[in-house]
Amino acid sequence: MARFQPKNPDYRAISIETFERQRAMRTLGISITRLEPGEVDLAMNYHAELTQQHGFIHAGIITAGLDNACGIAAFTLMPAGAGILTVEFKTNLLAPARGERFAFRATVVKPGRTLTVCEARAYATHDGAETMIATMSGTLMALAAREAAATDCAAAPA
Amino acid sequence: MARFQPKNPDYRAISIETFERQRAMRTLGISITRLEPGEVDLAMNYHAELTQQHGFIHAGIITAGLDNACGIAAFTLMPAGAGILTVEFKTNLLAPARGERFAFRATVVKPGRTLTVCEARAYATHDGAETMIATMSGTLMALAAREAAATDCAAAPA
Amino acid sequence: MARFQPKNPDYRAISIETFERQRAMRTLGISITRLEPGEVDLAMNYHAELTQQHGFIHAGIITAGLDNACGIAAFTLMPAGAGILTVEFKTNLLAPARGERFAFRATVVKPGRTLTVCEARAYATHDGAETMIATMSGTLMALAAREAAATDCAAAPA
Amino acid sequence: MARFQPKNPDYRAISIETFERQRAMRTLGISITRLEPGEVDLAMNYHAELTQQHGFIHAGIITAGLDNACGIAAFTLMPAGAGILTVEFKTNLLAPARGERFAFRATVVKPGRTLTVCEARAYATHDGAETMIATMSGTLMALAAREAAATDCAAAPA
Repeated sequence: MARFQPKNPDYRAISIETFERQRAMRTLGISITRLEPGEVDLAMNYHAELTQQHGFIHAGIITAGLDNACGIAAFTLMPAGAGILTVEFKTNLLAPARGERFAFRATVVKPGRTLTVCEARAYATHDGAETMIATMSGTLMALAAREAAATDCAAAPA
Repeated sequence: MARFQPKNPDYRAISIETFERQRAMRTLGISITRLEPGEVDLAMNYHAELTQQHGFIHAGIITAGLDNACGIAAFTLMPAGAGILTVEFKTNLLAPARGERFAFRATVVKPGRTLTVCEARAYATHDGAETMIATMSGTLMALAAREAAATDCAAAPA
Repeated sequence: MARFQPKNPDYRAISIETFERQRAMRTLGISITRLEPGEVDLAMNYHAELTQQHGFIHAGIITAGLDNACGIAAFTLMPAGAGILTVEFKTNLLAPARGERFAFRATVVKPGRTLTVCEARAYATHDGAETMIATMSGTLMALAAREAAATDCAAAPA
Repeated sequence: MARFQPKNPDYRAISIETFERQRAMRTLGISITRLEPGEVDLAMNYHAELTQQHGFIHAGIITAGLDNACGIAAFTLMPAGAGILTVEFKTNLLAPARGERFAFRATVVKPGRTLTVCEARAYATHDGAETMIATMSGTLMALAAREAAATDCAAAPA
């Protein structure tokens, strides 16, 4: 049983469409592996082009995955026509991003009319063992349909 | 006059080398534009492949630039042989990352033997006007030369 | 010259009044020492009852001062009738809160119709020398006059 | 079954003693209600002297409870003789701190030799119903017995 009740019956299609319109996700090779109301998992394979100086995935790339998982998780609970933007997030890095495959799992902690708070965790799978490598807590903002239309969803938090 | 005195006389060469060993920076097209003890500026051109659903640069990519600026700023003040890793950072997003060119400017707030706290700001230049689009505060950790050698700098914060 | 133009000509009186209605500030002995549009300084004397296990001021108390400085700084720029609430903040602790007197200095980084981002720094004065002991970045939210009236400003971020 | 194995067989007594040496906790009326390896619950009754302008508990006081829960949770897993200090934390405020009684529940996410990452949640009980009002993620640092002795545990993160 889902913890959250989506307001938009079409939440699944619109969430996937929003995700797929992000060219950065395609560039980074990140895809959706699970999508429920308020819960989203993403996955990414290792790419040497995304590494830092020790050959692990760069913390910024891990953060991009975590942020996107939070954004889509929040978006699944927003009303039809809403736009979404990230207000802030914090990432704690727990272990090097060493592995062949990475997962980003986000859940909504508190949905809201304007602001939604999410948490996410990143995992690396290396030689068959999964390790938690990072956590995120973040705030997402819904733009009303009217605002989203007027601004093409581009309005800053301000 | 520099605010900070580097411990490693060779800080400039080693900081640049560390930056350049990060393949993610090359992939994202991010380069160093200024490097002083405790202060680093990076720059990135707009790339359509790094955008989110509204055509602006993805917040994760902006965060990668901010994190890297903080990391190199902290690294300039570390002793010879030290390794560096990011402990945590928070990003506040102030405005859409709309522009032709982006700058990431970091300064050390408090250097330390083990932990260094940095702040950074991201700016977008659009039609000749520069706007602050994001802020970061973060904690970086120095690994002693011995640890760095033993672990190839890969030790987690733990 | 002030960096920000207040929307409410009465911002000074209303900001001071809002501050003084917080009984926690009186209990902690925190008072306003400077108030400009978008900039607020608070001060607090050392109190043994507010210390942690080593006799320094507890990080939570330092955070209360920083949060309040941010809140009032943001509030000075809000329109008449608005309510305010804190969405989130991060504190980095740089040094022990050792001293006879403490200052909390906040500035608005980005004012907004709904969300305002602030930064603040805490300083300890010990034996005549001032040390930066903590930093904060935080997000504050304005409640429209209508909402503020309906809810007595108590509405959660949601 | 406990998720974590304490290194210090005496962890319970030393954790309680450390908590009780914090005069701020007594002043705020915060006490330990549960203490297991890596998990700590604190509780606090409503006090009018700790309120903000709408009569709810001040966010800084909630943060003091959350921070302390994290600190003690991390401390239960540290070796004998270690000191502890908070490096950073972020608080997200989800709902007004309205209630007769408040709980602060922390768990260690990743213990480490030097740094430990914790998460905590604050709850308000109002008219018999419990609501989550805030979340925290934070980093705690262990000071080696030697350092702790030399500095009376007062060393800054630096």
